[in-house]
Amino acid sequence: MTESLIVTYEYFGEDPKAIADVIRVEQSIEFPNDLAPAWIQDEVVGKIVEITSLNPNSHQIKIAFNPDNTGGELPQFLNVLWGNASLFPGLRVIDVDLPDSLTKKFKGPRFGIEGLRKHFGAPTRPLLTTALKPMGSDSKTLGEMARTLALAGFDLIKDDHSLANQPWSKWRERVEVVATAVQEANQITGKNCAYAPSLNLPFDQVHEAAHTAKKLGAGSLLVLPGITGFDSMRTLAEDDSIALPIQAHPALLGSFVSSPTNGIAHGIIFGTIARLAGGDISIFPNTGGRFSFTPAQCLEIKAKAVAPLGNLKPIWIAPAGGMTLERIPEMLASYGSDTALLIGGALSRGDLAANAAAMVSAVSGR
Amino acid sequence: MTESLIVTYEYFGEDPKAIADVIRVEQSIEFPNDLAPAWIQDEVVGKIVEITSLNPNSHQIKIAFNPDNTGGELPQFLNVLWGNASLFPGLRVIDVDLPDSLTKKFKGPRFGIEGLRKHFGAPTRPLLTTALKPMGSDSKTLGEMARTLALAGFDLIKDDHSLANQPWSKWRERVEVVATAVQEANQITGKNCAYAPSLNLPFDQVHEAAHTAKKLGAGSLLVLPGITGFDSMRTLAEDDSIALPIQAHPALLGSFVSSPTNGIAHGIIFGTIARLAGGDISIFPNTGGRFSFTPAQCLEIKAKAVAPLGNLKPIWIAPAGGMTLERIPEMLASYGSDTALLIGGALSRGDLAANAAAMVSAVSGR
Repeated sequence: MTESLIVTYEYFGEDPKAIADVIRVEQSIEFPNDLAPAWIQDEVVGKIVEITSLNPNSHQIKIAFNPDNTGGELPQFLNVLWGNASLFPGLRVIDVDLPDSLTKKFKGPRFGIEGLRKHFGAPTRPLLTTALKPMGSDSKTLGEMARTLALAGFDLIKDDHSLANQPWSKWRERVEVVATAVQEANQITGKNCAYAPSLNLPFDQVHEAAHTAKKLGAGSLLVLPGITGFDSMRTLAEDDSIALPIQAHPALLGSFVSSPTNGIAHGIIFGTIARLAGGDISIFPNTGGRFSFTPAQCLEIKAKAVAPLGNLKPIWIAPAGGMTLERIPEMLASYGSDTALLIGGALSRGDLAANAAAMVSAVSGR
Repeated sequence: MTESLIVTYEYFGEDPKAIADVIRVEQSIEFPNDLAPAWIQDEVVGKIVEITSLNPNSHQIKIAFNPDNTGGELPQFLNVLWGNASLFPGLRVIDVDLPDSLTKKFKGPRFGIEGLRKHFGAPTRPLLTTALKPMGSDSKTLGEMARTLALAGFDLIKDDHSLANQPWSKWRERVEVVATAVQEANQITGKNCAYAPSLNLPFDQVHEAAHTAKKLGAGSLLVLPGITGFDSMRTLAEDDSIALPIQAHPALLGSFVSSPTNGIAHGIIFGTIARLAGGDISIFPNTGGRFSFTPAQCLEIKAKAVAPLGNLKPIWIAPAGGMTLERIPEMLASYGSDTALLIGGALSRGDLAANAAAMVSAVSGR
């Protein structure tokens, strides 16, 4: 085995050596180790690198896997990382180190932080993003909402993550109406506001829909990798004929981070994996909003969003979920200016245009 | 709202009425309810049906959603069920009732229990299934293993769930070699043993790979919906030009069931959702194997695999993970004969052909 893929698991229980031996086999050959040919035991089965016991019931187990076990593909990488291990009690992925031989199989985010700064003409300021709501609104209403937001100076306007193909606003119609409204606003402002329709669509429609969206004038894409799969996002990001900025939404992914004794660490799933899978902006629920992430968990995501990862670009974070204008200074103090501010519903309390203008002016000069 | 989609959440904490109000909005319009037009509040926002408090910190909350909120599509159905709610602490999906208007949008499993009984000429007995291992073996070795198992009389032989496109056995080569070996064995036995290659492949290759597999003689497909998405399985199941039995593997799905206070109940994810998504056989870790499911959790899966669900066929369960020949009688006593027995690595301890023959004879006469 040359340079390894190293996964650090946290294990809550006794006898970490025994568990480490189980994991290194389960996550590779899933076969009685003693029955495997010697070379497979040597080269294919994972190896225990280190076990660090924090206390009798909490241990960090580092296991090195042959990167070839992933076949250089994201679905099997996820399987090596967490496939069957997800079914063990008291086990969690807390870190992962990818060798260059593996990261170079991935193109990662097409734009990343610098790419979107150039794309939106925002050399130093945070990005201004929002969402079209509520479900039930017709396409014309959503289009006018988008026009108001684009005229105010937003960079990105996404479909609410639950807008799919409902009868009140069918997907194709909505994309055409909203993209047109945003493009008309761009003609007036001279800016490059991008509408991001949701691609939480049937598996066999996702790629065609992305092409349709681009043709109809959408300037970005919203992907829900917890539902359509992380590899749906990667293939969209790597498609040169699409080449649009991608926002990753956390729907369903809460189950990977909700338990302190199971799952995948916040930074790995919303940072490292989102980036491997080509997200330019990783949306997650900010601390102090409607959800439950702690400040430390949010900062862990921020750290992994920009940590060295082969040649893959660092990405934007969008700490969201019930954010308000009042929280902007604190968010920027916590996360820095490489943050995509995402305020949705709160902009509709009172006058949308006035609130949108207030949000834009809150970042002017930054 | 006509007939509703009713989701039962279990909530661990205080003030269930306040949380119920949050969920019914979060899982529908995700927008300040008081700002939504009255008709949207009436027809699109979820409604609290009932709150049952089991104790001051445990409550069952039933919420009725307009089925139109799903757009009749599986990805958005999953989003309504659990999208952002996955990010709440102390919340779990414990049941779901789908109106006929929604179930009729899905074809579900193509074969189901009766279909596979006919397909494999097994009018009353359990199905006999196994897996090709270990990773690292070349295609020829795996092909010979498959030949031995097919000659012994197995119904289904799947790729180990971690066999993807590794250098030791590239996907296309493996499918050709193994499918050929199994077909040659079928010529001798006169049976209909099916090889199920894994489709845990890049998003944009899954459908083409399924067609290739069929062309090369594969008789079944293995899907990992936790990685490629439940809708990848549905589209494969509904494709009349493929029309092969589908086995669903639980990789990554452990994170949805590992916490008693978060996630989706075992029966819903491995039973109801697997079925909506077209799985004919739902593989999950049996109690007492290498994993952690309790007898009650396994029986809950069995119950949902066969419970009424519109016109969708009941499906097979495959309780697996470290099973041995000795456990067959107990498993059949627990789950009944509509069980796909799945024994993998244990068949290789000693003589594979002899162990395979013993497994086949263990169900003969049943």
